[in-house]
Amino acid sequence: MDRGRLEAFSDGVFAVAITLLVIGLAVPEPGRGALGQQLASHWPSFAAYVVSFLAIGIIWVNHHNLVRNFAHVDRAMLFLNLLMLFFVVTIPFATATMAAYLREGGADASLAAVIYQVVFLGMSLAFGTLFWWSIRHKHLAVPLTGAAARTALIRFTIGNLAYAAAVGVAYLSAPASLLMSGLVGVYYVFEQTPARRLGPAGGEQGDAEPGDGDERGADGE
Amino acid sequence: MDRGRLEAFSDGVFAVAITLLVIGLAVPEPGRGALGQQLASHWPSFAAYVVSFLAIGIIWVNHHNLVRNFAHVDRAMLFLNLLMLFFVVTIPFATATMAAYLREGGADASLAAVIYQVVFLGMSLAFGTLFWWSIRHKHLAVPLTGAAARTALIRFTIGNLAYAAAVGVAYLSAPASLLMSGLVGVYYVFEQTPARRLGPAGGEQGDAEPGDGDERGADGE
Amino acid sequence: MDRGRLEAFSDGVFAVAITLLVIGLAVPEPGRGALGQQLASHWPSFAAYVVSFLAIGIIWVNHHNLVRNFAHVDRAMLFLNLLMLFFVVTIPFATATMAAYLREGGADASLAAVIYQVVFLGMSLAFGTLFWWSIRHKHLAVPLTGAAARTALIRFTIGNLAYAAAVGVAYLSAPASLLMSGLVGVYYVFEQTPARRLGPAGGEQGDAEPGDGDERGADGE
Amino acid sequence: MDRGRLEAFSDGVFAVAITLLVIGLAVPEPGRGALGQQLASHWPSFAAYVVSFLAIGIIWVNHHNLVRNFAHVDRAMLFLNLLMLFFVVTIPFATATMAAYLREGGADASLAAVIYQVVFLGMSLAFGTLFWWSIRHKHLAVPLTGAAARTALIRFTIGNLAYAAAVGVAYLSAPASLLMSGLVGVYYVFEQTPARRLGPAGGEQGDAEPGDGDERGADGE
Repeated sequence: MDRGRLEAFSDGVFAVAITLLVIGLAVPEPGRGALGQQLASHWPSFAAYVVSFLAIGIIWVNHHNLVRNFAHVDRAMLFLNLLMLFFVVTIPFATATMAAYLREGGADASLAAVIYQVVFLGMSLAFGTLFWWSIRHKHLAVPLTGAAARTALIRFTIGNLAYAAAVGVAYLSAPASLLMSGLVGVYYVFEQTPARRLGPAGGEQGDAEPGDGDERGADGE
Repeated sequence: MDRGRLEAFSDGVFAVAITLLVIGLAVPEPGRGALGQQLASHWPSFAAYVVSFLAIGIIWVNHHNLVRNFAHVDRAMLFLNLLMLFFVVTIPFATATMAAYLREGGADASLAAVIYQVVFLGMSLAFGTLFWWSIRHKHLAVPLTGAAARTALIRFTIGNLAYAAAVGVAYLSAPASLLMSGLVGVYYVFEQTPARRLGPAGGEQGDAEPGDGDERGADGE
Repeated sequence: MDRGRLEAFSDGVFAVAITLLVIGLAVPEPGRGALGQQLASHWPSFAAYVVSFLAIGIIWVNHHNLVRNFAHVDRAMLFLNLLMLFFVVTIPFATATMAAYLREGGADASLAAVIYQVVFLGMSLAFGTLFWWSIRHKHLAVPLTGAAARTALIRFTIGNLAYAAAVGVAYLSAPASLLMSGLVGVYYVFEQTPARRLGPAGGEQGDAEPGDGDERGADGE
Repeated sequence: MDRGRLEAFSDGVFAVAITLLVIGLAVPEPGRGALGQQLASHWPSFAAYVVSFLAIGIIWVNHHNLVRNFAHVDRAMLFLNLLMLFFVVTIPFATATMAAYLREGGADASLAAVIYQVVFLGMSLAFGTLFWWSIRHKHLAVPLTGAAARTALIRFTIGNLAYAAAVGVAYLSAPASLLMSGLVGVYYVFEQTPARRLGPAGGEQGDAEPGDGDERGADGE
């Protein structure tokens, strides 16, 4: 299977899912109180919207970095990718559910937050399995060095532990788990660890564009 | 017509249809009972969501395998592809309808399940006709051998008999027909019959990517 | 501007608009009468869904045939294309409105049908203007011969007269105008006039794929 | 990162966002008054729909012009692009909110219009920052000359001042700010300033298509 159509389909799903988040924002209506008060009372929707948008955006960046290094795509990778997209498509539902219950408190808010974090954990595990499969079955165009593979494994493990921890935090406090997800997203945007630099250099890949090297390397998250 | 834009449009429709499935999941609301109970009472929606997601994903994989071997695309193929996409676009409606009636039982549940299965049967028939047309009018880049064509015909016939059987099962029991659809989907994910290996080898096609061979061959379903 | 991204964006809009049609199909709910009766009473929605799906599919095929022959894309063509897409995006709204009023009869049904047909007329006029501009400013990779240009002009005029006539029919009878739109769509699927053959032959275009010739030529509709 | 997938994802988001605008148009229902009166009473929805469609279309054209001149895409550009898309995705919400309050007058209408204009201002600032970053970090395939960079800077500044002014006008009159946005859009469609011609000529870029030169140059707006 050619990589191009896997990317095209995945990009379509990412684009639709990230845009469908906006449907979760209830449009205020005249006659239900002042507009400012309505918007203020819906703050969980807006907060969850921002966090989920950032999360899908980051997943897309990571997916991009991973898939561009695929030399082959076998059947298992197609379905692992579909599994990952399944969780991505579920994010708008999980986001709307958490936003609806965030201020309720109690068991319902915890359950809604746990569902939200479990969807991200599932996405992360599917992503990591896809990455692991592509290494194990030698489907990468530029094989990772032993050091780079170890780094990626460590990153992947940390990422999944963070998601698992967010599930735990969600039991205790729904807003805290949402805040945690947001901070992780912001951290990721600015993150530039040396580990990122360990990936194969751009010059090693024939079809690389100039200046491409600084984005090489697929991350576990 | 170039194959690329047929793929791009089809991928767009697949991506939007698979993502729109999430709109069929009613977001729970505070004040209508405990969140856990609301989610539990909506289990048909979640079950139908998973089954339909898997089904569209498999259609997409098969479509990909078929179209990538098209050397020419004529007008009839454009419209057969549109007919197939018509059924794909209808899946979110059929899914939501079946989920709404699954627990009702009686004639309504049967009718909803029959509609659901008929949409898939129609999709499969349109897909098979597109495949048949591309063989008959010699539009494949790598012509199927006689044996591969026979295998594909057998697979296509079995697939459509399965869909027709699911329509019959739907009359008797809506949940059973949904379960059957789900099992067929899971079976397909893990299926690796020798027949799949009968397709033309990767080495015969000039523009094939390395390692591509194991995914060659368009299936009737 | 490169043609590729014009196509990608247009395909995205076509794909989303054609898939959004399904949102206009009200999902039946238990407790509002037998499922069969609910579906039967919604027949205008299903009829309008089929007709609009076919119409958008045909627009997409024609758009494809036109754009693939663009050698240059200038700023005016971008905005004419956007104008055409504006009407395409409006089709789901016009479809749902007509479906809601089709059985009402009287002035409201006529108005709803007129709006529906005017959206298609607007789309057709924008499409024709885009085609005319691309000829006049010599943006076609393979210039039309004088005969082909005349044929295209005639086809375009006939197409727009048909849409204008459908607006007139809509005043008299909404169902008749919908039926007319559906018949025009079916006719188009099977249409293979000699005029279609007058376009430049495939062999004249360097990057043409084999067997491509039978699809060459951009139509006014 | 290769430019192609950045474009594909962005185009997907643009296409979905521009098409989702149609969901903001409430479909009239029989029994709520004559159809014509219902449509007339919803004129703010239609006006906002047209203005937002044009605005997203123009953003897409500008995005296209900018990104096609990217030689490299670094991590910061990915996230600046995501930030820009965040505002684009928010447009359907802001449009529906403004349409709902436009005729209310008073503080609520002003607030709704301010939100609408702030979303566009945010989009414009993110776009300008992306442009500035690509110049500063030398990521353009064809470097801007000093004159072209100055022109672009001036255009960008004027564009953002116009958006900021629209925020101010929105405080005073919501309809006036919507009208202003529409006029800016119409102006932009027909705008052909000499500044646009200052960009690098098409002949300087190896992969340029013939006749491409008249569209070269990324604009600050």
